[in-house]
Amino acid sequence: MRYAVLGTGIVGRTVAARLDGLGHQVVIGTRDPEATVGRDEYAQWHQDHPGIGLASFAQAARDGEILVNATGGQASIAALTEADAAHLDGKVLVDIANPLDFSGGFPPVLDPVNDDSLAELIQRTFPRLRVVKTLNTMNCQIMVDPARVPGEHHVFLSGEDADAKKAVRELLHSFGWPEASVLDLGGIETARGTEMLLPVWLRLMGALGHADFNFHIQGA
Amino acid sequence: MRYAVLGTGIVGRTVAARLDGLGHQVVIGTRDPEATVGRDEYAQWHQDHPGIGLASFAQAARDGEILVNATGGQASIAALTEADAAHLDGKVLVDIANPLDFSGGFPPVLDPVNDDSLAELIQRTFPRLRVVKTLNTMNCQIMVDPARVPGEHHVFLSGEDADAKKAVRELLHSFGWPEASVLDLGGIETARGTEMLLPVWLRLMGALGHADFNFHIQGA
Repeated sequence: MRYAVLGTGIVGRTVAARLDGLGHQVVIGTRDPEATVGRDEYAQWHQDHPGIGLASFAQAARDGEILVNATGGQASIAALTEADAAHLDGKVLVDIANPLDFSGGFPPVLDPVNDDSLAELIQRTFPRLRVVKTLNTMNCQIMVDPARVPGEHHVFLSGEDADAKKAVRELLHSFGWPEASVLDLGGIETARGTEMLLPVWLRLMGALGHADFNFHIQGA
Repeated sequence: MRYAVLGTGIVGRTVAARLDGLGHQVVIGTRDPEATVGRDEYAQWHQDHPGIGLASFAQAARDGEILVNATGGQASIAALTEADAAHLDGKVLVDIANPLDFSGGFPPVLDPVNDDSLAELIQRTFPRLRVVKTLNTMNCQIMVDPARVPGEHHVFLSGEDADAKKAVRELLHSFGWPEASVLDLGGIETARGTEMLLPVWLRLMGALGHADFNFHIQGA
């Protein structure tokens, strides 16, 4: 499968590396590829992952069969707009971003929140994209290697398109998520709930002093 | 111990009955006791729990050593204002309410939310009350009987006062919560996180078709 991972941060790089390791063709999309390769952190990482391409959002989206939104949530609409709606048409977008707003400092707040969500905003803005919200409720290393947290724990799915969800389920299985750990909450509106897990996630990280934890719904 | 449980709904009645069963002296506080006893649902319940008193918010708060906020979150400030700050002075308030706003229909949204919480609003409004947010992240039957959900799962604590938290921990233990299941998140500000669990809780209830579940933080 050809994947386009939008976003060059630690989340995008972690998911891209995992997809590459699974044998997929992976291109990372960024606003300005030249600027990205000029950053030491990215250049270093790229040396370790020579098979992963880097391209503009538009080029990456055009080439990808499945897209992963790993941009910062406040930049997602702009990134997808640059990607160009024509390249998004009918494609699955695995939305793993959160609309964290750091403008007031740490901990960030969410925007949108409560009566809207980033996933819904993306789905409304690009109606022909098949958005599936998932994986946004945990550290990126757990996303691609759930066994990192021993015991049972959950990953949530929200989205309108049954086939898109099926494709994302298969992706999750390939990352190591057992079928029983994938909890389908329903339509894209349910992403409000999972995005609103971020505030307690941040405070749990503070209280526990690490990020190697995940939500398990006991009794589900 | 003398408990005042503010609120006559299913949450208040469930907690009051459990405290009564544990041998505590319990008074339920309500805005208009005559109107409350006139309601069939309450009158019926009262027959089954003759030892539990009913009084105005002010009388209940005056008599209680520990207060439980089981009012609807949109009515909590009004209820505590009627309870009278003089009766709240220095007392522990176990805040188990959520600021659910049903004015736009179901599912409700939260108000306050994101950069504030009901627990913080109460603590700011009544600075001499020792507010501990807890138990608000689950069905009321699980609050008082955690074994109802088999396996390990968590109850969170948020608050500024270490002694108040200690008292609430003891209360939780008496309800059946093991020490390892009580997760102290820190100050009252962390209640933003636990109140913001409600949106996903509501959607989990929808997806699962029941409310006999609870959050477990795997890896904590």
